[in-house]
Amino acid sequence: MPEVYLDHYAASPVLPEVADSIKPYLLQDFGNPSSLHSWGDSARQAVEVARERVAALIGAKPEEIIFTSGGTEANNTAVKGIAWASRKKGSHVVVSAIEHFSVLHAARTLEKFEFDVTEVGADRQGLVDPEEVRGAIRDDTVLVSVMAANGEIGTIQPIRKIAAIAAEKGVPFHTDAVAAAGYIPLDVSEMSVSAMSISSDMLYGPKGVGALWVRKGQRIMPLLDGGVQEGGRRGGTENVPGVVGMGKAAELAARDLESRAAYLRAMSSSLLEKLPAAISRLRITGHTDPEMRLPWNASFAVEFIEGEGMLLFLDQKGIAVSSGSACTSRALKGSHVLSACDIPAEIAQGSLLFSFGLGNKPEDVDYVIETLPPIVDRLRQMSPLYDKFLKAGGG
Amino acid sequence: MPEVYLDHYAASPVLPEVADSIKPYLLQDFGNPSSLHSWGDSARQAVEVARERVAALIGAKPEEIIFTSGGTEANNTAVKGIAWASRKKGSHVVVSAIEHFSVLHAARTLEKFEFDVTEVGADRQGLVDPEEVRGAIRDDTVLVSVMAANGEIGTIQPIRKIAAIAAEKGVPFHTDAVAAAGYIPLDVSEMSVSAMSISSDMLYGPKGVGALWVRKGQRIMPLLDGGVQEGGRRGGTENVPGVVGMGKAAELAARDLESRAAYLRAMSSSLLEKLPAAISRLRITGHTDPEMRLPWNASFAVEFIEGEGMLLFLDQKGIAVSSGSACTSRALKGSHVLSACDIPAEIAQGSLLFSFGLGNKPEDVDYVIETLPPIVDRLRQMSPLYDKFLKAGGG
Repeated sequence: MPEVYLDHYAASPVLPEVADSIKPYLLQDFGNPSSLHSWGDSARQAVEVARERVAALIGAKPEEIIFTSGGTEANNTAVKGIAWASRKKGSHVVVSAIEHFSVLHAARTLEKFEFDVTEVGADRQGLVDPEEVRGAIRDDTVLVSVMAANGEIGTIQPIRKIAAIAAEKGVPFHTDAVAAAGYIPLDVSEMSVSAMSISSDMLYGPKGVGALWVRKGQRIMPLLDGGVQEGGRRGGTENVPGVVGMGKAAELAARDLESRAAYLRAMSSSLLEKLPAAISRLRITGHTDPEMRLPWNASFAVEFIEGEGMLLFLDQKGIAVSSGSACTSRALKGSHVLSACDIPAEIAQGSLLFSFGLGNKPEDVDYVIETLPPIVDRLRQMSPLYDKFLKAGGG
Repeated sequence: MPEVYLDHYAASPVLPEVADSIKPYLLQDFGNPSSLHSWGDSARQAVEVARERVAALIGAKPEEIIFTSGGTEANNTAVKGIAWASRKKGSHVVVSAIEHFSVLHAARTLEKFEFDVTEVGADRQGLVDPEEVRGAIRDDTVLVSVMAANGEIGTIQPIRKIAAIAAEKGVPFHTDAVAAAGYIPLDVSEMSVSAMSISSDMLYGPKGVGALWVRKGQRIMPLLDGGVQEGGRRGGTENVPGVVGMGKAAELAARDLESRAAYLRAMSSSLLEKLPAAISRLRITGHTDPEMRLPWNASFAVEFIEGEGMLLFLDQKGIAVSSGSACTSRALKGSHVLSACDIPAEIAQGSLLFSFGLGNKPEDVDYVIETLPPIVDRLRQMSPLYDKFLKAGGG
């Protein structure tokens, strides 16, 4: 049986070059970058090289990069840290309703600290409207956070326009680029953005490490208090092996961005084109124009059945996919992203997310096209909803 | 030239068994524990095995362990998370003045959120007085945090007594056991403690991972909002390789606790005994009874000179030590711990911390005894303070 892993948005292996870069920092060059001796010097230099590489991926200055424990910490630090540092200016925050929970739930925590939060919606293609963001900004708004692209539905957001509006209004703009960095060009030197989150895992770097870029001059309260690491903006001994691995992964991602995007987009576009022809009553979620989607992403909703059933049957055939964000898969709730895109709950429950990676091959698409339709048929035969639909004359 | 690394409190290598345990989770078993397929199952099982191992080290239940990005995140989560979850009950927190900055600075952040913080001091041996803690507890106190042992000066704290007092007063008690876990027995099932922080690096596990134990029923607000990982108490995709490595390290630390402690204590006690005989005007910092100190720790203050100078000269001789916590070494401030123990700043500036590890050998002590005195002599010859002391008839 083939093993077809199509859940890279949930987790990816590290690249062999990345694994090689990590090893020496576990066993030999194990020093603490803060230490004032040779072991410390070696670790510190390795961290600074990694910082340059991560900065280069997004056109940032190295000293503006704060290493974190991942995308979730980066998003929490950005949202809470910028809001809390600006409390004297105001206590209103604007986020989109399709943000990852690490942004949305961070905003809900701010509500417990007397902040007001406005959520702007998205259209059926998953696009946030910059003019809606403009309308949501108030005199007391201290932060706007809209993601660069949504990982669940692939839609690339007009963040350049949103950033320009925020800048016009004098409000800091954070963008969660966890799903996007390494796949679409992002250059903070060319956008009016104040902060950007990225994660290592999405770049084929190790888990447990990420980065928050914060433009020089932007005030931010640390989320992790402690020592003076990361310029006093994030306490805790640096995860040197993790940081080194992320640095290597960022370097490779920057070098190969175009070829990776082309390779991945060929597979995702093929699936986006072929699957609707192979399964009736299946709709593409997110943007219908492949060029407006993340190259690794192909997302669908299959009517009349539940995503989870499909996952289990696909797993038995060696195919790993998800029905949305892995962070929410065990919460057993419908996707807030699909709901924000006005997709009815009974359709959203049949959502399927295929996230392609560098280890995939074009024939993986064929295997999905061949494997999924009989599974859908079988599940629909057990579905009272489908039965009702057929009796009403559908099919 | 020998290479003698005596800075294990700043950073330690991972054990070979730990490195071996990590590798498969980087390259093959790279799944996300939240994913509903075989790759996810494998990662989830690995994380749960690690959770059991970490829990076993401190006598806890596995489901009470929250994996974090390290000791700093564990301490921040405990201090802020318990305080914020208890705001309706009160807004007063008691910490000791010798806590690590990840506790002390977290408490200072609470002050920005309208909390009152009382710092209890320590005596010249570095001991916190349980009765002083009792006196500091008020009706509106929602948290007491006192470390299990201080890493800079080695003093083991009477946390069992402090925990009992906090329990008597109905106040949650958190203890930072980063420096202590794996070196002295800690059993949360036998103490009235509510939360305990531990780090992986101090157990010869990988950097970038730690754990916070929170007793069932103790309310805590997450520091990292996001998905429902870690029982909804800490968002973010689990750092599977890191967690697995920490689990392995905790298993070995529990198995070898007594033999490690005896091996390390023999070396540290030897240095604590011999160095004062080899260098005039040198004092032991922390407890003078080796049994009341962490087994890996030997700390001193050398009068009339600065610790940093000694570090640089020792580094040239292949010896790596620190002058205190690595987290503060680049802050270029005197140690708040020595200051709290009433050691005058001009003496505290000459502080030296030797932190022994499993890679050290008894002859490393001899090399230090042979190498340090001429360095001290040389630095004193350049010291105006020492000159003044000699002219006043000292020596």
